Amino acid sequence: MAVYTDVSDDALEEFLRLYNVGQLLWCKGIAEGVENTNYILATDKGQFILTLYEARVDENDLPFFLGLMNHLAENGLETAKPIMQNNGLLFSQLCGKPAALIEFLDGMAIKAPSHQNLFQLGVASAQFHLKAKSFNIKRKNGLSLKDWRPLLKSCGGDIDKVAPDVDGGLQNFLSLELDFLEKNWPQELPNGVIHADLFPDNVFFMHGELSGIIDFYFACNEVYAYELAIVINAWCFEKNGELNLTKSRAFFKGYQSVRKLEQAELEAIPILCRGAAIRFLLTRLYDWINVPEDALVIPKKPDEYIRNLGFHQRIVDYKEYGIE
Amino acid sequence: MAVYTDVSDDALEEFLRLYNVGQLLWCKGIAEGVENTNYILATDKGQFILTLYEARVDENDLPFFLGLMNHLAENGLETAKPIMQNNGLLFSQLCGKPAALIEFLDGMAIKAPSHQNLFQLGVASAQFHLKAKSFNIKRKNGLSLKDWRPLLKSCGGDIDKVAPDVDGGLQNFLSLELDFLEKNWPQELPNGVIHADLFPDNVFFMHGELSGIIDFYFACNEVYAYELAIVINAWCFEKNGELNLTKSRAFFKGYQSVRKLEQAELEAIPILCRGAAIRFLLTRLYDWINVPEDALVIPKKPDEYIRNLGFHQRIVDYKEYGIE
Repeated sequence: MAVYTDVSDDALEEFLRLYNVGQLLWCKGIAEGVENTNYILATDKGQFILTLYEARVDENDLPFFLGLMNHLAENGLETAKPIMQNNGLLFSQLCGKPAALIEFLDGMAIKAPSHQNLFQLGVASAQFHLKAKSFNIKRKNGLSLKDWRPLLKSCGGDIDKVAPDVDGGLQNFLSLELDFLEKNWPQELPNGVIHADLFPDNVFFMHGELSGIIDFYFACNEVYAYELAIVINAWCFEKNGELNLTKSRAFFKGYQSVRKLEQAELEAIPILCRGAAIRFLLTRLYDWINVPEDALVIPKKPDEYIRNLGFHQRIVDYKEYGIE
Repeated sequence: MAVYTDVSDDALEEFLRLYNVGQLLWCKGIAEGVENTNYILATDKGQFILTLYEARVDENDLPFFLGLMNHLAENGLETAKPIMQNNGLLFSQLCGKPAALIEFLDGMAIKAPSHQNLFQLGVASAQFHLKAKSFNIKRKNGLSLKDWRPLLKSCGGDIDKVAPDVDGGLQNFLSLELDFLEKNWPQELPNGVIHADLFPDNVFFMHGELSGIIDFYFACNEVYAYELAIVINAWCFEKNGELNLTKSRAFFKGYQSVRKLEQAELEAIPILCRGAAIRFLLTRLYDWINVPEDALVIPKKPDEYIRNLGFHQRIVDYKEYGIE
């Protein structure tokens, strides 16, 4: 949960006057989003999400994030559309923070997705990639291969105790993995704008259908297949650490029903899965070690991704992910 | 803010099947309510608040609280109506907690109420008192005169440091005040069911009009004029500690436009204001001293009520509150 910034009635009404959205009826802080402050509000013209961007989102990236949301929504992707201010801007300052008003999206994140949901997510991911081709702003991935070793270093020298079960120690395990990834990371795969944070929290469903993708605040230019590797890690493992092959198969099938993967992409899936696992492992490790005393959000332990990484290391053929 | 209980999709959908409210579209935890967990949710039939009652609300009181809300809503008071389950109940268990589904109320709490808003609140308070006369369950006030000294005692012997500016020490100040109140507390005033927690957080306004009263979880049988004393304390003081006479005058005028106060009630207003001040002073003091380390809600310091209490002690005539 997270409401970091308290917005006064007056400030809110002044902000809403920048838009053609009618008169405020109510506004409630919602326990959603780790990085930002979110409110749900209603006017006589509809319901909206008001997002205030806290320190972790760089204001300079907002034209990319909000522009991308707008571009994809206008091109028919199921996503939340940012509302344009009367002066044409997609955000401005509210209570000293950059803030945007975003169309309210029906549906909700689900905790137990079905393989049908994974198929739908595959379709939507591929549509995201294709529709974003005509979006003309770029953003570097701030958490790519070259960032992982500095991130590991910034976690300090005492990380072994976070995961005492890892043979040889977590520090050693991760260093060796980074050696491998740096040596073998694929070059020159098809790339473009990806969401880069397609976790179950960020995908809404309604009546069993995917109703929208939210939270574009890690979107960046990256190889497309890396997005698929993130989804495998985030959606397709059982609690006991086993891959749910039915789900991963359905996901790839959905994706390829819209965009066919090239042979080089298919062959890169196992190493990209290792990369995606270590990327989330490292940020969780960092957050776990650096949790502030007054944290409103309790960080998640990195254990799940240590386990996923071990799984991907044992893969010898991409077909083991159920790719047909 | 407060979301204490995480409700799974499955548990929520099972709970909603107890009602005739249609199919779930979305559900979001909201940062509202200190005592309970609250969600806002939408179905294809409308929007609702889902409240899970945490430890601080006694389940045995729920038939009173929810029955009262239902009774007042059915009798035309602007308030949120609890939804009845298909079996006729107003609450049942969800995730091990008693839970109720309540009609969503448009409007929002305001931080800077006008004297017009105070007039409206006066009208609504009197309507509350009159319409509750036909409600046939009773509930004792759990925070009345006789409870205050034990509550003070439970704050421990080290309270002076909480308010170092109080002449003679806070402990002494409160003990002497309780001596006075116990000796002079009025008997036999008109009484019935009151809300007993009519703070700005619990009253919604929309387009400048009062749209509803919420949060009935302190409602009880008490003297009516005590409700007015609470409102004076909670709504009518400026930040600098001065009474805003325009507001208190408007409030009494609104109240008396619906229910005329008897002479004995008028004369009791100053001592009831002292009582209301010490009641909120003591619970805030208790919460301040006993804040748990993992608190999601930061308690408020009791300073404001120490100051209010001093103000009321200096009153010699009820007319000083602007009562005409």
